[in-house]
Amino acid sequence: MRKVKWAVEYLSDSQKLVSHPEEKKSLWKGQYRLLHVEIGCGKGNYSLEMARKYPDELFVAIEKNESAAGIAAKKFDEAMEVKNLFLIHGDASLIDTWFAKEEVDILHLNFSDPWPKKRYAKRRLSSASFLQQYQSILSKYGQIQMKTDNEKLFEYSVLEFLKAGFLLDDLCVNYRREPHEEDAITEYEEKFIANGQPIYRCVFKKEKENETDS
Amino acid sequence: MRKVKWAVEYLSDSQKLVSHPEEKKSLWKGQYRLLHVEIGCGKGNYSLEMARKYPDELFVAIEKNESAAGIAAKKFDEAMEVKNLFLIHGDASLIDTWFAKEEVDILHLNFSDPWPKKRYAKRRLSSASFLQQYQSILSKYGQIQMKTDNEKLFEYSVLEFLKAGFLLDDLCVNYRREPHEEDAITEYEEKFIANGQPIYRCVFKKEKENETDS
Ligand SMILES: C[S@@+](CC[C@H](N)C(=O)[O-])C[C@H]1O[C@@H](n2cnc3c(N)ncnc32)[C@H](O)[C@@H]1O
Ligand SMILES: C[S@@+](CC[C@H](N)C(=O)[O-])C[C@H]1O[C@@H](n2cnc3c(N)ncnc32)[C@H](O)[C@@H]1O
Repeated sequence: MRKVKWAVEYLSDSQKLVSHPEEKKSLWKGQYRLLHVEIGCGKGNYSLEMARKYPDELFVAIEKNESAAGIAAKKFDEAMEVKNLFLIHGDASLIDTWFAKEEVDILHLNFSDPWPKKRYAKRRLSSASFLQQYQSILSKYGQIQMKTDNEKLFEYSVLEFLKAGFLLDDLCVNYRREPHEEDAITEYEEKFIANGQPIYRCVFKKEKENETDS
Repeated sequence: MRKVKWAVEYLSDSQKLVSHPEEKKSLWKGQYRLLHVEIGCGKGNYSLEMARKYPDELFVAIEKNESAAGIAAKKFDEAMEVKNLFLIHGDASLIDTWFAKEEVDILHLNFSDPWPKKRYAKRRLSSASFLQQYQSILSKYGQIQMKTDNEKLFEYSVLEFLKAGFLLDDLCVNYRREPHEEDAITEYEEKFIANGQPIYRCVFKKEKENETDS
């Protein structure tokens, strides 16, 4: 993404930006029922729409690109009535410095950069070192929900999640063949839908229900 | 499939048909390196071509439809030079009466009937009672390889295999985007490729390498 000057300038003044997320560690949820974290939110549509759909759940969107984060920040601020939404501008490789163990209920990965070359595989948001952090910050019944248009990223990710010990809860190779009112459409997703491309989706959970209860 | 009179009549005379497969139980492999079993072989192209590709491995194709089995039988017989290939005419729900525990190395499910209605789910070749039998007849390092054009059957099957305790070894949502010289193309597959439809494929193994070795 090329630099968007106004967005970069806007970012630091945003009301919804959390400038020191490490200070909120273990304190995020407050009275909210569930904590959702979206990694790589881009221009922010998904988290904003989800926050509107689920007003008693909290949404935190993470974006490392300054211009994209600035655009998301402005959108979030303009939705003044939406209180259950925050933005972190930073690299998700620091995610476990921002969220405490078992603090996050649902992690969303939407159309993450595929990094097709093997030498950049570590940058994929579903590579082993990220998954280790997700395991740690996810709550007992926590979930990861991933959507992508990218065949190879999808295949890679499903195998990596399973290798890391996550349990496959749902798999869909054409997510938009049916309506999903419960889930928002991202900016990228909108384009792929318009092009008639299939959306791949998988959901993983951290552990079996009742695994440690019985 | 409508009845094909000549095929039905041909079947019982076929050289490659094994009329009493239960008598071969535990004796199939002989000097062959590996035993492959294809369930629902239809007109038999896949097993025939695979038997040609891998002359020191044994292929047994199962088909319950009499006409399809008869067509496959004729094809198999005409390939006189191919010795490592047999046909069973019968319903795969009897598979563990034909093969002994841990006798089969690779199970192939190609474009199995999807049985989309829930009330017929038990007829799906990847439903729980079939998977239990596959677990039993598969060798320690045994594999199941499944290909399908059917999105929902694919999604259902991946979840069922994992539930049954199989380990996902490979997943592909567009198998024919790359050539796979090592694998034959089935009759159904050929049509889907011609239509530009994606082929879904998954490979499961019975257990982790070294799981019981270490
Ligand atoms: C392809 S875009 C998709 C944006 C949005 N999720 C959508 O679906 O429209 C991926 C986004 O993830 C961001 N991203 C990639 N790696 C990241 C990381 N390690 N931490 C935070 N954001 C990241 C990129 O900056 C980019 O904005
Ligand atoms: C859709 S066709 C595919 C044929 C072939 N595998 C191909 O890819 O061209 C499925 C075949 O599986 C057979 N079949 C379905 N259930 C079976 C069962 N329980 N036992 C044996 N064959 C079965 C059907 O008779 C049919 O010929």
